This record gives sequence, C-alpha cells and structure tokens, in this order.
Amino acid sequence: MGGRESTVAHGPEHGLERLIFFSDAVFAIVITLLVIELHAPILPRGSPDWNYWAALIALTPHFIGFFISFFVIGFFWAGHHRTLSLAAHYSPRLVWPNLMLLAAIAAVPFFTAFTSANPMMRVPIFCYCAWLLIAAILNRRLQAIATSPPVVGETASPELVAMTRERGLAVILGAATAMLISIAIPVLGQVALATIPLWRLMLGRIREGRR
Amino acid sequence: MGGRESTVAHGPEHGLERLIFFSDAVFAIVITLLVIELHAPILPRGSPDWNYWAALIALTPHFIGFFISFFVIGFFWAGHHRTLSLAAHYSPRLVWPNLMLLAAIAAVPFFTAFTSANPMMRVPIFCYCAWLLIAAILNRRLQAIATSPPVVGETASPELVAMTRERGLAVILGAATAMLISIAIPVLGQVALATIPLWRLMLGRIREGRR
Amino acid sequence: MGGRESTVAHGPEHGLERLIFFSDAVFAIVITLLVIELHAPILPRGSPDWNYWAALIALTPHFIGFFISFFVIGFFWAGHHRTLSLAAHYSPRLVWPNLMLLAAIAAVPFFTAFTSANPMMRVPIFCYCAWLLIAAILNRRLQAIATSPPVVGETASPELVAMTRERGLAVILGAATAMLISIAIPVLGQVALATIPLWRLMLGRIREGRR
Amino acid sequence: MGGRESTVAHGPEHGLERLIFFSDAVFAIVITLLVIELHAPILPRGSPDWNYWAALIALTPHFIGFFISFFVIGFFWAGHHRTLSLAAHYSPRLVWPNLMLLAAIAAVPFFTAFTSANPMMRVPIFCYCAWLLIAAILNRRLQAIATSPPVVGETASPELVAMTRERGLAVILGAATAMLISIAIPVLGQVALATIPLWRLMLGRIREGRR
Repeated sequence: MGGRESTVAHGPEHGLERLIFFSDAVFAIVITLLVIELHAPILPRGSPDWNYWAALIALTPHFIGFFISFFVIGFFWAGHHRTLSLAAHYSPRLVWPNLMLLAAIAAVPFFTAFTSANPMMRVPIFCYCAWLLIAAILNRRLQAIATSPPVVGETASPELVAMTRERGLAVILGAATAMLISIAIPVLGQVALATIPLWRLMLGRIREGRR
Repeated sequence: MGGRESTVAHGPEHGLERLIFFSDAVFAIVITLLVIELHAPILPRGSPDWNYWAALIALTPHFIGFFISFFVIGFFWAGHHRTLSLAAHYSPRLVWPNLMLLAAIAAVPFFTAFTSANPMMRVPIFCYCAWLLIAAILNRRLQAIATSPPVVGETASPELVAMTRERGLAVILGAATAMLISIAIPVLGQVALATIPLWRLMLGRIREGRR
Repeated sequence: MGGRESTVAHGPEHGLERLIFFSDAVFAIVITLLVIELHAPILPRGSPDWNYWAALIALTPHFIGFFISFFVIGFFWAGHHRTLSLAAHYSPRLVWPNLMLLAAIAAVPFFTAFTSANPMMRVPIFCYCAWLLIAAILNRRLQAIATSPPVVGETASPELVAMTRERGLAVILGAATAMLISIAIPVLGQVALATIPLWRLMLGRIREGRR
Repeated sequence: MGGRESTVAHGPEHGLERLIFFSDAVFAIVITLLVIELHAPILPRGSPDWNYWAALIALTPHFIGFFISFFVIGFFWAGHHRTLSLAAHYSPRLVWPNLMLLAAIAAVPFFTAFTSANPMMRVPIFCYCAWLLIAAILNRRLQAIATSPPVVGETASPELVAMTRERGLAVILGAATAMLISIAIPVLGQVALATIPLWRLMLGRIREGRR
C-alpha cells in the first residue's frame, strides 16, 4: 500500500503540477519578452529636452501594443489558471493540447511587434486578432479536456465548470468580433477585444434563462 | 467533508501559490533581461589592451544602469515577497492589481536602457523615476489588498502589517523625491532613491510616536 | 529520528525537485526564446495590404522552423517529465548528465535560426538533425541513470521503465534517420523526424515478440 | 497553537522556498540567455556546402564560450543548490547577499560575449576570470550565512558544511589562478578554471591532515 501511495506522489499528481508549472513559466516568459520590442531611443548628446519627449511620443504605438499584449497574455494566463484549478488528475491527453496553446501564446510577441511597427494598418491588426482567435480556440479545446473526466476534480462544481467554459467561449466570440471589425476599420480591431466581457454577460444571461 | 478539503487543496490555496509563482518568474525574468542591454564591445583583431579597457570604461553608464535596476527590481521583489507572506487566502481581486504591478516592473528594462543610452540627461532620468513612482503606487495598491480581509492571514501580526505598509509608502515617497530632484539636478535623481530607508525610518518614528 | 526526517525533507527529496524545477525552467525559456528569431517585417507607411501579406509569406520558413522546434523541445520536455516521474531519489550523478542535456536543448534556437535563415539548404538541415541526435543520446544517458538504482523509485513498474527507454531509443533512431536523409534530400530531413513514432512502434513489437 | 503553525507555513519556511525558487529561475534564465549571443550565419542562396561549414567554423570561439559559460553557471547553480540544501530557516539576512550573487551571475553573458567576440585577447579573458572571482567571493559570502545559525539546519552534518565551504574556497582559488594565468598567457586563462577540482582535492587533504 505504501508503494501505491509513493507512486501517486511522484506520478500522476506530480504530473499535473509539472504541467501547470511549465505553462506558468512559458506565460511568464512570453509576457516579459514583450519588453524586448521596446527599443530605447538614443539621441545625440546634449539634445534639448523636447527631443526626448518627442522620441518617447513616437513610441506610443509600441507602448500601446506592449500593454494590450501584456494584459491579453495575463488574461489567457488567468483563464489557464482557472481552468486547471478545476482539474485534479493528470492525463497524458493534456500534454499536446497544452503545448499547442503555449505555442500560440509564445508567438504573440511577434504579432505584437508586427502591429506596433506598422501602426493602424489593416493586415497586421487583422493578423493579431486572427491569431488571438486561434489561441482562444486552442484554449477552449484545453478547457474541454481539463473540465471533463478523467481530468476534472470530482468536487469541481458544475456551476464553476459551466462558467469557465462560458468565459472560454466569450474569448472566442470577442476575438472573432475584433477580427471582423479590423477588416472594416483597422484601428477599432484591438479595441473590440473589450467586447469579451459583454459576450460573457450575454452567455451568462442565456444560461440563466435556460434554467 | 473530504470533498471540501480536496477543493481547498486544488483551489484557493493553490491559487495563491500559482500567483506568487507567476510573479516570481516575471521578476526573475525582468531582472535577468537587463543584461541584454549590455552589448559587448567588438574591437579590431590585435587592438592594444588599452583599447579594450577604454571600451569597457565607455560602458560605465550601462553598468551603473544595470546594477541600479537589478537592485531596484530585487527590492520590489523582496517587498512583494514580504507582502504576500502575510496573505493566506486567494482572492480573484488580487489578479489584476498584481498583473498591473508586473507590467510596470516588466517595463523597467526599457527605462533602464533609455537612461543608460542617454547618460545624465534630464528627461530619461525623470521618466525612470516617474516610472518607479507608478510601480510604487501599484505596489502599495496590491499591498492594501493583500494585507486586508479576506486575503490577509488571520495570524499575521498587526505590527508586521503596519511595517509592511510603511515600507510601501516609503518607496512611494523615495521615488517621488527622486523624480522631483531629477528635474533640478538630473544626475542626483537616481541617487535620491537611496532616501527610501530614510523615509522608512521617519514613518517608523511617527508610528511609534502615535502609540 | 526526527532529525533524520528533517534532513530528508530538505536534502535528497528536495534535491530531485530542485533539479526538475531547474530543468523545467530551462525548457520553458528555450521554447519561448524561439520567438526572438521571428522578426516582424516593417513596411513603409501606407503600403498596400498585399505587401504585408507578401512580407508574412516570405517568413514562412521562419514560421515552420519556429513550430517544428517548439514541438521538438516540447517533445523532449515531455520525455524528461516522463523519465523523472519514475525517479524517486536524488543522486549527485544526475546533475552533470542533466546539465549536458539542457545545454544541448539550449542551443536548439541557434540551429533553428540557421535552418530558417538558409531555407532548404543541406548543411543547416543536416546540422539541425545531427544536433537533435546529440540531444537524443544525452537524453538516453540521463534516462539510463534516472531509471536505474539508486535513483529509480522502488514502485516504478518495469514495464513503464522499458517503455520509457524504448521511447528514448526511438528518438535516437528517428534523429539518425532524419540526419541521413538530409544528406541526400535536404527538404525531407526535418520531415523524417516524424518517423520517431514508427521506430517506437517497431521497438514495442520487438519487445512483445521477445516475451 | 494552530495559529503559530499557520504562520510558520506561510512565513519563514515559505520564505526560504521562494528565495530558492527565485534564484533557480534566475540561474535558468541566465544559462539559457547565453544562446542569444550565438548569431546564426545567413549566406547568399545557393552558396556551396563548404561555405556553410566555414561559417560554422568561424563561430568556434562563440560555441566554446557558450559551453564554458553554460557549465560555469551550471556549476554555480549546483553549488547554490548544495549550499541551500543545508539551510533550514529563512532569514532576511539571506536576501541581499543572494541578490548580489545573482547580479554577478546575470552579468556572465556579457563577459561571455566579450571574450567570444574578441577571441584569445588578454583583456576580455582577464575580465571574464576576474568576474568569476567576484562571483566566487559573493558565493562564499552567501555560503557563510547559509551554513551558520540561525539559517543552517540543526541536522546538517558538520562534515557536509565543511565540504561545502571547501568547495566554495576552491572556486575562489581556481578563479584567481585563472585570472593570474590569463595575464601571462591569455588562451590558458579559461582552461585554468579546470584547476578548481585540484584545489578542492588539496583543501580536502589539508582538512583530513588536521584531524
């Protein structure tokens, strides 16, 4: 019996922790690597103060891109966090869907740099939103596995599982909205990501209406 | 009952650990990324020794910037560490204030590079200090949440809570002092960050006087 | 006796966890650093949409390289994960073989950039595959130590140990195949990495045939 | 009483773990960032195979620098690991000496790039060895704190403490030897780091002779 317990301690349970740990580390690195795209302006010695301010102002699209992506990745991290807090059992079926989500997240700094370096242009903003849509779909796929047997915890409340999945769906709908809007009015594309809470509210209403 | 306990183990408590872990990882990555701004000089083959020393000496502002930011971020990390050691319960209210603090910390390498590449200039040093002031305010906001119910541990001593908050306030006052001084005498701006312990001492005196 | 237990808690067991943690962190950083090689195209303001698409299409070899290496490193991580989940006791003999494997993994972004920047050329693809062969051999060496006394857990099933070693051998055979093929037909080199599951199947058959 | 225990769980013990975790993360990031200095050669399309090999051969000093620093940092990590496995109690006195050691380690990629980009030149190799000497001294200072009361575990064997300190001293002596040799014969500087095990052997002999 002692043997079984020891296997559990170093096996399945530990597997879930190591997967969560690895994912957290990837999220943390991606979110921090965003700063590498912020290149500090170098001015000739003795330039007047105003030139420095002007140089910073010229970087505005880069700052905006940095903060949008920081919070988008933070948002995905918080979602990953919430999803896996409902899981209680390790399954090898989690590994590849999780890696695919992480690969999508890891590429966000590229699309951030693409939109920041070509501010307010249609294609970069469209690609940024389309990429988030892909990440949102991969996120939802991971959610489906983590909140179903055999992975989900026996004590996870069905209410919480429903809400978590709703959030996942809201991110897909928000990213799709942003992508479509970016075709017509590029500058409004990333702004439309802010519709995610609205979609969540609406999905919540529908669920409550059903009961 | 066993069910409740299992929920606790994978839920709230784990939530706090994952948040601390993620923050530690971001602090560790930011502090290490600072080295990327240190570009090694490349000299023509066979240059005399003295040219190598001269190339290193020319990097002095970069070395100073590296070490100041290393210890500033280390200081914020130690404060985060201290603050969250008083917390015992996870709350979703921690997530966004913590992410905002991390976003501020993640941008420090940019402001470090800005001051190092334009040494002793007013605007870069002012921006560096102003950015630390923003980080200090976000830090204090996180402290307020982490050291209040429902997050704070029941056994956290009120004395320790008061001291932790005092340290947070001292960082705000020190960064504000540095920012104001940098307007008049830029080179003294970052030096004035060293007033943080003085502010802490003064706040400690006031608290003791009140009793 | 209490003393012994305390030594165990902070000593050997903790040693294994710290080694796993350190390795996970290195894997996570390497996998995320791959994105640094994806340089966002910067186009003249007001370029037509098509130019942006063309700029992205020109990056195709870089995207393919990013994803292949992301999944190759993810694959090695999952293998490391599986191998060390069979270990139960820390041994200093793990440290250097583990560091050597990590050094091989840490250099993968270099070989990825080499193949992506010189697409479909023989030498870069050959070097990429040869490097994976080296990593696979170092991986197998670590496996041998982690799945043998004194490191292996007493409760690790011999079946699981055999399967883990088989997977390690399949990676060596797959990388060797890819390396040989890349000499004749470079473009098929990385594709041939997909033979790894076939080798695993074949090795599994042989083992079952033996019984 | 339950209150005391809860304070211990989230306080001191946790403090030691967070410090170890943070340090591990910094070591892992520094060791992995080394690869950033390896720039993949880009050749004109259709260059003959031999040109690719020549481009790789031209990178030899960078590869050597990468591997030396990878193992030097791995060596410091293993030492940090060993030192802190003897510690059992958190003390705020650990924070700054640990941060100073990490700052020294974080700067190693800079000195690595300096030696790799200017191969076999006296000043870069001297600086590399001198920097390792500084890191070794900071390492020894941390060792002294971690292996003394109140930090050291009550059950840590005096033999193990003595051996750990000996290793720390051997690193100082090895780095000093390398630094001195690099003045006379630069190329032998980094090779002389291999005298560390010899110093350890000699110190071990002296200790045994004393008994």
